[in-house]
Amino acid sequence: MTTSSTQRLDAALSAIEQAGDEGRRIFTRVYVDTARAAARAADERAASGLSLGPLDGRIVAVKDLFDVAGEPTTAGSALLRDAAPATQDAPVVRRLRAGGAVIIGKTNMTEFAFSGVGLNPHYGTPGNAHDLLRIPGGSSSGAGVSVARGMAEIAIGSDTGGSIRIPSALNGLVGFKPSLSRVPREGAYPLSFTLDCLGPLVQSVADAVATDSVLAGIDHVPVEARSVRGLRLAVPRGLLFTQVETEVSDAFEQAVAALTEAGARVSDESLDSLLGAPFQLQEKGTLIAAEAAHIHREAVVQRPEAYDPIVLGRIRRGQTLDAATYVGIQQARNALLGELDRALADFDALVLPTVAFLAPLIADVQNETDFMRVNALVLRNTSVFNFYDLPALSLPLPRDGKLPVGLMVVGRRNADRDLLAIGAAIEALLG
Amino acid sequence: MTTSSTQRLDAALSAIEQAGDEGRRIFTRVYVDTARAAARAADERAASGLSLGPLDGRIVAVKDLFDVAGEPTTAGSALLRDAAPATQDAPVVRRLRAGGAVIIGKTNMTEFAFSGVGLNPHYGTPGNAHDLLRIPGGSSSGAGVSVARGMAEIAIGSDTGGSIRIPSALNGLVGFKPSLSRVPREGAYPLSFTLDCLGPLVQSVADAVATDSVLAGIDHVPVEARSVRGLRLAVPRGLLFTQVETEVSDAFEQAVAALTEAGARVSDESLDSLLGAPFQLQEKGTLIAAEAAHIHREAVVQRPEAYDPIVLGRIRRGQTLDAATYVGIQQARNALLGELDRALADFDALVLPTVAFLAPLIADVQNETDFMRVNALVLRNTSVFNFYDLPALSLPLPRDGKLPVGLMVVGRRNADRDLLAIGAAIEALLG
Repeated sequence: MTTSSTQRLDAALSAIEQAGDEGRRIFTRVYVDTARAAARAADERAASGLSLGPLDGRIVAVKDLFDVAGEPTTAGSALLRDAAPATQDAPVVRRLRAGGAVIIGKTNMTEFAFSGVGLNPHYGTPGNAHDLLRIPGGSSSGAGVSVARGMAEIAIGSDTGGSIRIPSALNGLVGFKPSLSRVPREGAYPLSFTLDCLGPLVQSVADAVATDSVLAGIDHVPVEARSVRGLRLAVPRGLLFTQVETEVSDAFEQAVAALTEAGARVSDESLDSLLGAPFQLQEKGTLIAAEAAHIHREAVVQRPEAYDPIVLGRIRRGQTLDAATYVGIQQARNALLGELDRALADFDALVLPTVAFLAPLIADVQNETDFMRVNALVLRNTSVFNFYDLPALSLPLPRDGKLPVGLMVVGRRNADRDLLAIGAAIEALLG
Repeated sequence: MTTSSTQRLDAALSAIEQAGDEGRRIFTRVYVDTARAAARAADERAASGLSLGPLDGRIVAVKDLFDVAGEPTTAGSALLRDAAPATQDAPVVRRLRAGGAVIIGKTNMTEFAFSGVGLNPHYGTPGNAHDLLRIPGGSSSGAGVSVARGMAEIAIGSDTGGSIRIPSALNGLVGFKPSLSRVPREGAYPLSFTLDCLGPLVQSVADAVATDSVLAGIDHVPVEARSVRGLRLAVPRGLLFTQVETEVSDAFEQAVAALTEAGARVSDESLDSLLGAPFQLQEKGTLIAAEAAHIHREAVVQRPEAYDPIVLGRIRRGQTLDAATYVGIQQARNALLGELDRALADFDALVLPTVAFLAPLIADVQNETDFMRVNALVLRNTSVFNFYDLPALSLPLPRDGKLPVGLMVVGRRNADRDLLAIGAAIEALLG
């Protein structure tokens, strides 16, 4: 960092301020005073040659589903607008503060993180950072937009079906969904106990590495980029390559060509029976919907009118799933995890488009039919890897100012650092 | 062992033989030839001063839900009488064989391990070892009776709600249900993915320790009995002490008096809100029934007539549970585990009667109403500690030839060896 934390905070605060109403759709809260104090403290440490770690003095936004002591955690819901204030910071927030991060505010999100599009009828829908008329992607909508618009350097999101990677892809950022067990989830409003993951939306793989160290509570060591030469990359042609917009597939194929040119061993692999299994298994109902039906069982009876009708509908469908089918999905998942692991044993990573399309216009997802179609497709490629608990990184592809396209790189379970090293190599090549 | 493995095997085989039809209700299979070969091999090793471990040459029966290569695994069901033979031994069976155990046969059980009484309409109901007209306890019915009648030295059972401890208590044995993660469950026909545990029914705590080492795959070190003096024992007076027969409570109170006399610090503790929670939480349906409803989802449609009607009825009730409630029970359980742990932090163990009554007459549990009442009560005290994932040991109380009574000693999660050391001390005192 060539400028002080205070200077960078001021720039971020003034970006929020200048955005006016849009700023209030991106941030549900801005912590001007505490952020200024934290930035000053970081600058004083730096002047004394001290550091609390790789995020010391960095400007960090947190999704409004993390508990921040003294504030209600809204999770994007009108129901929780006046909830009792959290009594303590979520462990993730505590780790950020202990690492010297300057928490600038809380970012807006899809109600209860329950969709990938990023609309919010209660707190407003932030426009995409590259075109205000387009969707931001969700559920970490404000997180993606805030970093892309310079209102934060790092945003912390949650990803149950793609909620970090989708807004990263659609706003031109690096998004990292770690393996399930990597980051503690206490104090984050849950969507799915089985699938929720927490991670960063950032501008570079190096920032993803730094944030991952702090969130995972491990000593920070910068990642050394792997060599692209010799990387064994599988491209899962088939189901996840259907309905892909031309601009997305063009950008993806150019990236594959560049990787091949640089010496990566890229091969097409047919994995459709495994990659399609999460959808087939959950046709009657999803793990997410069943778990949300438990979490919301009282509120959907007592205050149904306070919900986004689309979210309410999805929770109600979750209520219809029977326990035996739920158990069956969990058991099948346990078996499938090992099967995909074996199928990927000879590869360093999978590569595919993060999202099949460019960010659509907000106006085009206003009726429920369009919304549901776009939502299903926006989540398709990402959600598979929540089901399989594989770490995944979305990297921005070079687009010369056109709407962003994300390249998803999927690694091996609990080999998150290996994936980040591969991501650094690909980022350096495609940059 | 003062006699050879071959001699002890012959004694066990002739006990089975002499029992005639009753022997066939206790054992669903007897492996005469392979057992003789294994016993000879063990004797030859012993003659050469070699040993494969603490079970080398011991006569071991396994419940008929463990896969034995080449045999169908019936799980006490008529449906599986002609099932495809298992292609390999369950890990537990493999560990026993690798440890030199002489597998004498497979023992009868409640159909699919789905009750604690021990009746089986397909393979017959083994009579209690102390009174043939009384129930053996279940679901590891043949396991308990076989050891108590000298047809095996050690039996391996499963315990989802008490299926090791109940037949141990009712037949005068030591029964050990370990912590959930201690023994691998592959190759054991499942009743509940959440709650199934595997462990031994034996004549002494020393044998429980030896078997535990082999099943858990750890180096065998004999347990040193703790001193009873200073042991902090909690007696959870309340719910689990209701409906206790006089003979059971007399035997229990005598044991408590002896422990107190020997210097244990025994205190009455009110834990009813925690110990009652598993029942309240599962009023709409149990984890076991929901998981069984998944496991049996096809068979209950295709061959309902092949089921024990009582087991079928319980599976069908499991089909009515909704996924959200199931998720809620699992979440509540996760939270409750920690609460009971904290409540027990100042104690070495809990002590209470394993089963509230003496083994009732088989004739008295023939109609469904009586059966369901007895089944609920026989499982009550044991099932609580499956729910809480605490290791538990049933020890026989001194009864001078009268019907057996079990003392249950419940330890701390994953401190199984500590519990066995406490059990050894109590066994030595009460003898």
